[in-house]
Amino acid sequence: MTDPVLPTFADIEAAARTLAPVAVRTRMLSSPALDERTGARVFLKPEVLQRTGSFKFRGAFNKLSSIPESQRAAGVVAFSSGNHAQGVAAAAQLLNMPAVIVMPSDAPVSKRERTKSYGAEVVLYDRDTEDREQIARAIAGQRGAVLVPPFDDPKVIAGQGTVGLEIAEGLMHLGVTSDLVAAPASGGGLMAGIALAIKHRFPQTGLLTAEPEGFDDHARSLNSGRRQPHHAEGRTICDALMASIPGELTFAINQRLVAGGVTASDAEVAEAVAFAFRELKLVVEPGGAVALAALLAGRMDARGKTVVIVLSGGNVDAELYARLIRQ
Amino acid sequence: MTDPVLPTFADIEAAARTLAPVAVRTRMLSSPALDERTGARVFLKPEVLQRTGSFKFRGAFNKLSSIPESQRAAGVVAFSSGNHAQGVAAAAQLLNMPAVIVMPSDAPVSKRERTKSYGAEVVLYDRDTEDREQIARAIAGQRGAVLVPPFDDPKVIAGQGTVGLEIAEGLMHLGVTSDLVAAPASGGGLMAGIALAIKHRFPQTGLLTAEPEGFDDHARSLNSGRRQPHHAEGRTICDALMASIPGELTFAINQRLVAGGVTASDAEVAEAVAFAFRELKLVVEPGGAVALAALLAGRMDARGKTVVIVLSGGNVDAELYARLIRQ
Repeated sequence: MTDPVLPTFADIEAAARTLAPVAVRTRMLSSPALDERTGARVFLKPEVLQRTGSFKFRGAFNKLSSIPESQRAAGVVAFSSGNHAQGVAAAAQLLNMPAVIVMPSDAPVSKRERTKSYGAEVVLYDRDTEDREQIARAIAGQRGAVLVPPFDDPKVIAGQGTVGLEIAEGLMHLGVTSDLVAAPASGGGLMAGIALAIKHRFPQTGLLTAEPEGFDDHARSLNSGRRQPHHAEGRTICDALMASIPGELTFAINQRLVAGGVTASDAEVAEAVAFAFRELKLVVEPGGAVALAALLAGRMDARGKTVVIVLSGGNVDAELYARLIRQ
Repeated sequence: MTDPVLPTFADIEAAARTLAPVAVRTRMLSSPALDERTGARVFLKPEVLQRTGSFKFRGAFNKLSSIPESQRAAGVVAFSSGNHAQGVAAAAQLLNMPAVIVMPSDAPVSKRERTKSYGAEVVLYDRDTEDREQIARAIAGQRGAVLVPPFDDPKVIAGQGTVGLEIAEGLMHLGVTSDLVAAPASGGGLMAGIALAIKHRFPQTGLLTAEPEGFDDHARSLNSGRRQPHHAEGRTICDALMASIPGELTFAINQRLVAGGVTASDAEVAEAVAFAFRELKLVVEPGGAVALAALLAGRMDARGKTVVIVLSGGNVDAELYARLIRQ
């Protein structure tokens, strides 16, 4: 078996053409209140406004679009804690393909319900005792369906890279160069795609992954130069960011292009979600707010700089959200 | 005393130049979920993303900028249930002017606190027993300060009109003509400004005010052709939309340019706030969501049409918001 070829900038441009008719072009936002608070010029990339409420639709639609017509009737299978599930389900619906999603039984109810609303079949598993990848592979094998990996796939990475392409084009349109671009990382697909696009246009821009405290496998791996798992044993409120180790393909890209990783505690993430409610008027889920949290907590050297912060998703249960904004 | 001259399209263009360095240009958003739900092509004008969290900053800054330098030291006074208060306070802070805001004692705490955060002095009054306009006039008289009316003022109307100008420019950029533009109405300043701008560029577009059920003074007045108060005696969750009768200047404009008014019940507004949380990922306050509520409740003939919905503000207490999104 040969190694899958890493995606290139041209693959991201191709993904942008594929996505143009269906994805939302999420224009960057700025907030005088945020600039004042941080002393930076901040541009927010609001992927909460993307179809399905997160960037995951981009990679999923790009991947599904690459499946030959003859294989589409057998459908797709994916395993996901939530946003990838919705992305795959929505993409499958648009392309008239059946979809099975393997989800942890403790995933937020909103994410489970929304996945079903796109017409997907949901299969639940126990996060502590079962192997979701094994379950998904078995279903894919039985049905002849294509397994859609959440991050470690060239088409998925290229799709997420359109986030970076839009950031780069937005900055060029404004005549601005960014010093830093920070994005949440779980498997690292979003950052790998962003890195390919941003570094192509702005080689001097520094890139940072943002992770929940303890779930810092990217920070550790980028630091040591090899893929390392995190050592967290509990949970984080960032349910979207619990991957245990960077992907192989994603890390091959990120190791080369990303400067390092920052983290934020659950309390800092909660404060960022509340800040986004109060000052930005954007609904951001905990995992989607971790880069903003790191910025607000002073975990990146932003003062006086131009910084792009990716708000990667906004799918959060009303109960949890109510608790976070009233703290 | 001569009648104040009604603002014109040229006044709105001048306001846009005044606002350009400080206001956020709130680009219109679209949502596949909303289009699917309504069968319309909907553009959202997200004034929740404006400085201070509502469109009110526009009119306030334009008005304060028109005060001669020699009179600025005496400051400004305004009476407001909240968003106008924040708009005036923030504009005064940017222009280095003192500001006194007369607010009802039952205004949302978030609005009161945010007003203070912009450096304004807040004076509370009892909505049921005291006359806020009288109190504000007395303070203005004592200090030689300028009273900044919430809506019935040519400079304020011209400032709010920049919302309409941006809508018109956004539509032209997209090569789209809108069939309908709907916006929340209290005193009618936002709609008067929007009407002047939209009708200048798109004479065929229909304009609709949106009000809380019962607080339908615009619907009644537009229907009868003369200013009429509403007959509501209780409260509405739309605390921003409780003016009792359309303004004189605003109605002189709206009577000529606006097709009619729609309403939404508090329950429909609550559903719209929750929809914006769940599907749009935008924090919208009840009063800011009333046009969206009327659309979602089928109160306007939108199917198959291109519709612009103004989300006028997003300043809502966390407690109330938590209750609305969990329903």
